Amino acid sequence: MRMKRDFTIGIDLGGTKMLVALLDGAFRIAGRVKVKTRVELGRARFLDSLFNSVRSLCKDSGIPVKRIAALGIGSPGIIDRTKGTVVFSPNIPFLTKFRLAQALAGELDVKVSIENDVNAGLYGEFRFGAAKGYQNIIGIFMGTGIGGALILNGRLFRGSSGAAGEIGHVFVQEGPVCGCGRTGCLEASAGRLAVASEAAAIAARQGAPQLFAMTGPDVAQIKSNVLRKAVEAGDGAVEDLIRRKARLVGCVMGSLVNLLNPDLFVLGGGMVEAMPKLIVKEAESAMRERAMPGLVRHVRVAESKLKDDAIILGAAALARDESARGESDG
Amino acid sequence: MRMKRDFTIGIDLGGTKMLVALLDGAFRIAGRVKVKTRVELGRARFLDSLFNSVRSLCKDSGIPVKRIAALGIGSPGIIDRTKGTVVFSPNIPFLTKFRLAQALAGELDVKVSIENDVNAGLYGEFRFGAAKGYQNIIGIFMGTGIGGALILNGRLFRGSSGAAGEIGHVFVQEGPVCGCGRTGCLEASAGRLAVASEAAAIAARQGAPQLFAMTGPDVAQIKSNVLRKAVEAGDGAVEDLIRRKARLVGCVMGSLVNLLNPDLFVLGGGMVEAMPKLIVKEAESAMRERAMPGLVRHVRVAESKLKDDAIILGAAALARDESARGESDG
Repeated sequence: MRMKRDFTIGIDLGGTKMLVALLDGAFRIAGRVKVKTRVELGRARFLDSLFNSVRSLCKDSGIPVKRIAALGIGSPGIIDRTKGTVVFSPNIPFLTKFRLAQALAGELDVKVSIENDVNAGLYGEFRFGAAKGYQNIIGIFMGTGIGGALILNGRLFRGSSGAAGEIGHVFVQEGPVCGCGRTGCLEASAGRLAVASEAAAIAARQGAPQLFAMTGPDVAQIKSNVLRKAVEAGDGAVEDLIRRKARLVGCVMGSLVNLLNPDLFVLGGGMVEAMPKLIVKEAESAMRERAMPGLVRHVRVAESKLKDDAIILGAAALARDESARGESDG
Repeated sequence: MRMKRDFTIGIDLGGTKMLVALLDGAFRIAGRVKVKTRVELGRARFLDSLFNSVRSLCKDSGIPVKRIAALGIGSPGIIDRTKGTVVFSPNIPFLTKFRLAQALAGELDVKVSIENDVNAGLYGEFRFGAAKGYQNIIGIFMGTGIGGALILNGRLFRGSSGAAGEIGHVFVQEGPVCGCGRTGCLEASAGRLAVASEAAAIAARQGAPQLFAMTGPDVAQIKSNVLRKAVEAGDGAVEDLIRRKARLVGCVMGSLVNLLNPDLFVLGGGMVEAMPKLIVKEAESAMRERAMPGLVRHVRVAESKLKDDAIILGAAALARDESARGESDG
């Protein structure tokens, strides 16, 4: 008797850790494992640890590897989906241009699809989370930088070379140099690192005593949760700073309403998870002031729902959905 | 014997004039007519003049009306394609929410499709002009205002309510109040009316003698060709002004490269037609400085080719293409 292939593997491939999950036919999580990405051990050991994670996950869940229909990976960087490679992998250098999909497909005998992690995360929200039922969706993820993704007419929109969705690199105002080398990018003015550097300056001039007590003016230590604690403890200057930054995000959202006529924004990432009400409210209010009234009226703004599961669920669903329709997706 | 239905009608429905063209099976123009849009005579007379234009065009070309397979209209405003109406028609008020497609289909017994005029124009360039062979195309049309349209994955992208592509209302810098009621829009800073108002101020303070001699500081008279003549006659301040405005357009183009990962921009409209080299060159140079290097490398910038024929050709092609694939286009 031929074994039914009804399970899927979803992998969130980060530079410091990997999340690997086994999903049943209804995309319920049957098991998951988190492993350190030991980049220093090189590619062969990295691949072994990936193969072993999948095999032991199946074993522990009592599911034969043969029941896996597809495996989806969400990875940072620009993805070449036809080649199954990461065009440039900043955190895991030995993956750059390596045929990762082919290696996994060969070893595990499954269909493999690789997708940009932000795209995969938004697709997860679209299939199972905050964006279910919407058709034109803009995802904005405020972590260290600001990532973005687009679902247009119910499909991930990838652009001409798989790099669409760089909302963090839309012009918003002249300001600090961005990680991309340009100035004026939203990310350079409103990403967590930008917020932290301004907060550090405020702390350095004694304008944020609670923050100063926690971290001093050390930008590297001023993470999203530290900012949240400073706001909760009464650092009004930090709260003002975060409101202003959220409004910059909202200004870009307003432009995107006029440009793409979406029905939903999904906001997520560490900054939003730490201070969801503050950031979503300010961003939405700035968006409504900026966009054309007739277009913005029906636009909704939601907080992401799936958190750490968004990428594994989205990558897995993409691997299933797109193998089902023959990857005609552009 | 059943008559072959191989001709198409394309209509460019402007507030002051209408262009009606008869196109053969290969979309060659078999005949065309230009009529004044006499809004003051009311809807019934307007419709009569439209019907008569189509009929006399067919008669003069020796083509029976029965050979028309489809009729496509390009109209300003937001279009509801399922209802076949213009949701809001600023220049021809009696068309607002009127079932224009149904009226035409009933009278002439053809399939009718209505599309926003800027969308139709870009589609014309995509099928027959400067954008042939590209898949992800951004059209920017600098007339009195700044219109825009998007072709993504080889299809017009219309957004959730048919209003996508408002590139003139992307935020670029704080500035004058825009026609849309907001501030900060590209159109408010770089549309022809914005350029004319700044040029008038320069002329008023005697900074542009050639322009002053032609029009004085009268904003309404400072059209694209007047600006071109002033530049050619040596008004350096006017040339600088136009360069700076083109660079603002280029700044937004850079953001759109990062956001949508396109392969082509098409620039058109009265301002571009009057000064194509100056504007295309400055806009492209600013775009390349603003966008992420890896994304912008393969992006091309072209001047529109079809000029006055873009909308009639695009509207006609849309009517044919989309009736052929059953309007599954979203």
